Amino acid sequence: MARIAVDVMGTDRGPPEIVAGAVMAAGAGHELVLVGDREVIKPELVAAGADVEVVHAPDVVGMGEDPAKAVRDKPRSSIMVAARLVASGDADALVSAGSTGATMTAASIVIGRLEGVQRPAIATPIPRATGLPTLILDAGANLEVKPVHLVRFAVMGALVAEIVYGIDRPRVGLLNIGEEPSKGREVERSAFGLLEEAPVNFVGNIEGGDIPGDVADVVVTDGFTGNVVLKAMEGTAGLVLNLVRGAFGRHPGSSPGKMARIIEEVRMMVDPELCAGGAYLLGTRAGVVIGHGSSSRNAVLNAVRLAVEGVKGGLAERMERGLARS
Amino acid sequence: MARIAVDVMGTDRGPPEIVAGAVMAAGAGHELVLVGDREVIKPELVAAGADVEVVHAPDVVGMGEDPAKAVRDKPRSSIMVAARLVASGDADALVSAGSTGATMTAASIVIGRLEGVQRPAIATPIPRATGLPTLILDAGANLEVKPVHLVRFAVMGALVAEIVYGIDRPRVGLLNIGEEPSKGREVERSAFGLLEEAPVNFVGNIEGGDIPGDVADVVVTDGFTGNVVLKAMEGTAGLVLNLVRGAFGRHPGSSPGKMARIIEEVRMMVDPELCAGGAYLLGTRAGVVIGHGSSSRNAVLNAVRLAVEGVKGGLAERMERGLARS
Repeated sequence: MARIAVDVMGTDRGPPEIVAGAVMAAGAGHELVLVGDREVIKPELVAAGADVEVVHAPDVVGMGEDPAKAVRDKPRSSIMVAARLVASGDADALVSAGSTGATMTAASIVIGRLEGVQRPAIATPIPRATGLPTLILDAGANLEVKPVHLVRFAVMGALVAEIVYGIDRPRVGLLNIGEEPSKGREVERSAFGLLEEAPVNFVGNIEGGDIPGDVADVVVTDGFTGNVVLKAMEGTAGLVLNLVRGAFGRHPGSSPGKMARIIEEVRMMVDPELCAGGAYLLGTRAGVVIGHGSSSRNAVLNAVRLAVEGVKGGLAERMERGLARS
Repeated sequence: MARIAVDVMGTDRGPPEIVAGAVMAAGAGHELVLVGDREVIKPELVAAGADVEVVHAPDVVGMGEDPAKAVRDKPRSSIMVAARLVASGDADALVSAGSTGATMTAASIVIGRLEGVQRPAIATPIPRATGLPTLILDAGANLEVKPVHLVRFAVMGALVAEIVYGIDRPRVGLLNIGEEPSKGREVERSAFGLLEEAPVNFVGNIEGGDIPGDVADVVVTDGFTGNVVLKAMEGTAGLVLNLVRGAFGRHPGSSPGKMARIIEEVRMMVDPELCAGGAYLLGTRAGVVIGHGSSSRNAVLNAVRLAVEGVKGGLAERMERGLARS
């Protein structure tokens, strides 16, 4: 059974929300270790009547801290203690909704990187109409990349799509400004040829408008573009829903309750947090799932599920073999 | 009065749709010169009972053609003839919904670039909740940029926001992955300091999610990021509207007619083509508006309006002075 270390500290909503999500996950049968301030966690568990293992960590890395410095200066912070549980084999994978930078740094240093990976990549699931998400990577860890990095992203993303989402021969698209192989910057033009030779189902260049469509299951790009595009898509979804709400209000005879249900239904379909609960950090020696800093209990539950699916499917081991072959 | 040369040829929907838009614009009092195949245009004008000047051009540059080669090989193509009308002063600005590459090349060669501009930039208006669009540039002409280019984009974009959209001291944001000046790639980190010194109302870094918000009136970024983000936002808006339509259908008692009206109302607010009709090509010696290849007659009317506003506000002249000062 997969045992998941959950970093309870350093999130926007505070430890009680994370513990509440962990209690839901434990109730669903997942085996967890909660890492953080025991004095804060225990009363929450008692109040919920839940029996979940706790490993005490006296320090916290805050959202605003310099990740490299904080991780170095606070070896007893919850993220470092949780990472060591995974490195030592006491846990199989790590979930954190704290500082993304601190999670990346702790995972790289303590859990370690797979051969050939200089820096892990973030794979974020994006909701689309088909129900299954599109994975976009890198979503912000590697702002500038070489063509070979895009190939590694393709291999790693395809494995997640296959193992976690059950997609057979996932289609990998290279994010670009046009379909032709000659389009894009030097990095895309070079990566195109490498991706054609790589052991993935490469479907060629895809454009921004194709991301929410049913064109590719995995979209590879540099972390700057990936981060900006992801956030722009989230912002646009929010804007459109607000406009729909406004249009409803202007049409006489609308039932406010019904309107609210329709908006909420769509919001849940397009909210990346609800859709997935978190993003995968890929390229580390064990599974790491990064939740939004503002993760709700539902998001925590989903993040634990993502981590469990990865462990069950042997994601990290298969990734090591996949990268070695590519 | 502003006289606008409209390239009628080479669009996805064919000349009759462009002529129909031009007839609407002429009916609204705009002075136009239609450029293209006289044998195709004349019968449309006769059928519409409209009297609009036509300048014959026997050749067309197709969407799939190499722009530089096509423009060189077809001096009598509609885009080249239209550009020469502007260069000679027979028209004040140019509107084309044909090949963007051909329009950029023809405008650069025939109309000419402003001092210090190596390559024009595309400024695309993005709908947002406030009613006034956000301008994003570059939207695809300059895939990789230097910090100084981002400063020029800021100066040019701010002038458009001021002159065309009547925004006082338009706020300029630098698209980035975080707010802090230290965020981003080398190009953003260097541009941040330059933008602080530039004669624009620089509001700092903005994230992807801020684009549809009320944070900046002008968003500057490289053309690769701009193009991908724009298309991803369009795709997301379409997805969300489809999901809303689907959610409506699942709720019993919905009136299909009312649903269609609400969806259409929001679609018209977020459809960039309906919102603006086209994008500005900035950095040329006279106004150039680029329409979508699939422009409808309404989009053509709006594109003509954009061109007229630019001419009336002395956009090209003020841009020349603004660039010289920056």
